[in-house]
Amino acid sequence: MEFTNLLNASVARIERALDRHVPPAATLPPRLHQAMRYSLEAGGKRLRPVLVLAAAERFSTAGAADPLPAAVAIECIHTYSLIHDDLPCMDNDDLRRGRPTVHKAFDEATALLAGDALLTHAFALLATAYAAQPALAVALVQELGDAAGSRRLIGGQMADLLAEKKTDATAAGLEFIHLNKTAAMIEAALVMGGRCGGADESQVTALRTAGRHLGLAFQIIDDILDVTSDSATLGKTVGKDARADKTTYVKLHGLDAARRMAHEQTEAALAALRSLPGDPAFLTALVRSMETRIK
Amino acid sequence: MEFTNLLNASVARIERALDRHVPPAATLPPRLHQAMRYSLEAGGKRLRPVLVLAAAERFSTAGAADPLPAAVAIECIHTYSLIHDDLPCMDNDDLRRGRPTVHKAFDEATALLAGDALLTHAFALLATAYAAQPALAVALVQELGDAAGSRRLIGGQMADLLAEKKTDATAAGLEFIHLNKTAAMIEAALVMGGRCGGADESQVTALRTAGRHLGLAFQIIDDILDVTSDSATLGKTVGKDARADKTTYVKLHGLDAARRMAHEQTEAALAALRSLPGDPAFLTALVRSMETRIK
Repeated sequence: MEFTNLLNASVARIERALDRHVPPAATLPPRLHQAMRYSLEAGGKRLRPVLVLAAAERFSTAGAADPLPAAVAIECIHTYSLIHDDLPCMDNDDLRRGRPTVHKAFDEATALLAGDALLTHAFALLATAYAAQPALAVALVQELGDAAGSRRLIGGQMADLLAEKKTDATAAGLEFIHLNKTAAMIEAALVMGGRCGGADESQVTALRTAGRHLGLAFQIIDDILDVTSDSATLGKTVGKDARADKTTYVKLHGLDAARRMAHEQTEAALAALRSLPGDPAFLTALVRSMETRIK
Repeated sequence: MEFTNLLNASVARIERALDRHVPPAATLPPRLHQAMRYSLEAGGKRLRPVLVLAAAERFSTAGAADPLPAAVAIECIHTYSLIHDDLPCMDNDDLRRGRPTVHKAFDEATALLAGDALLTHAFALLATAYAAQPALAVALVQELGDAAGSRRLIGGQMADLLAEKKTDATAAGLEFIHLNKTAAMIEAALVMGGRCGGADESQVTALRTAGRHLGLAFQIIDDILDVTSDSATLGKTVGKDARADKTTYVKLHGLDAARRMAHEQTEAALAALRSLPGDPAFLTALVRSMETRIK
């Protein structure tokens, strides 16, 4: 199938770029750099960096910049957030992408520092790789800094933790968490890709709207898979949400309504992407594949 | 005394800027933003941001940029590193700047996220505050990203943790730790200040050399104070190094030799600063005051 081949090629480009744009494992101190790479090299869907490249490809502006460093930067942020989320003081998870989590394979202090280092590296990489186009570099650092910051990614994470202790969770509260914990980085992926490609401000707005809907769809599917999948397929512990009596789309609305909402959000994302130039085939297929994913 | 007044005025400017350039405590989710501010507002010497301003003031280039956002960014990084260092999986400290550490006043998860948020905010702030001078913004993000990254601040921290388990620590190993764990951020403070002021590359090199010596002096004095001071004066637990049988300058070389080394590093820093333009009085007095500090 054409889409699968293109997706695999995109993932392969990203994995080569991760290797190139992250310090080698032998860099002093090796234990820290091994832990950074252990987690980055564990695979996963590479969804956010694939979205960066897919968004950039919709544009063919003269002077468009290489989107790969931006793709690597966003994967570094995503990976750091997983390492820190898995720590005992957070979700206390032993399994991630089918392997022991970083604090299990190394230790807690190393996991903490490896996360800090990947977070820091994301910004250093943007500033270095795009130094010849400083206005672009600044826009990318701003975008990633906002999406990953205290009002969005980290704020969503904090709200999620606080919600676990509440029994009166609302649909609005759940949306706040997911707009920030999940959608912010998916938005940022599309916007950063667009900026590398040379998108204008109205195109950036369309990408941001698409990212918001796609992010919500992604989170709803995640909630569904936690109920309907198994740990072997998913590569992480399933049924956690129910055991923790966590508020999810499935708990709040039921499985059928959650599936309907995921579909509506997916269609809204596709509608927002329709105004963009370039060949829509890959990005459309990618968005559709995220609705029907099984892991 | 003139110097003390100038120093107090500088600290007061920095504290107003911290308030202005960090999200208000009521920002959603409030618990996260309260924890960020709890730690930032705990006081401390504000040494790194004072160095940013002091370095910037040596230059009076047309078009020089306001150094305050850079000063705030570096204090955010310093504060995040303290919050994470104090966590149970790291130094497990209950007291910092005379108050309960963040994980004691809040909880571990909040401390972890507040640290992550301050780290992320530092880069977002640089990109936003200096957006009108994108080449400067990029240079500042690069400088801070390198200094705070896996090869320097975090690498030094990791090497420090690993060294605690070793019995064969060497002077070279100790220097690696301190050049990265401590001197990197002091170097970055002087360089970032210089860049805001419009320093040329040879002036940046002089600032970097001065920062390296000043950073080593600072760490040697820290090691001395851990032996000679008391917790009330220092605002943190003393005698920790000896109890942990940690390798320090004092343990490796003795108190007298450590004092002599601190003096030599201080003089080397002052020598490097001599080539800079502008009134040397404040920066010279600041460097000297760091050698004779009691906390």
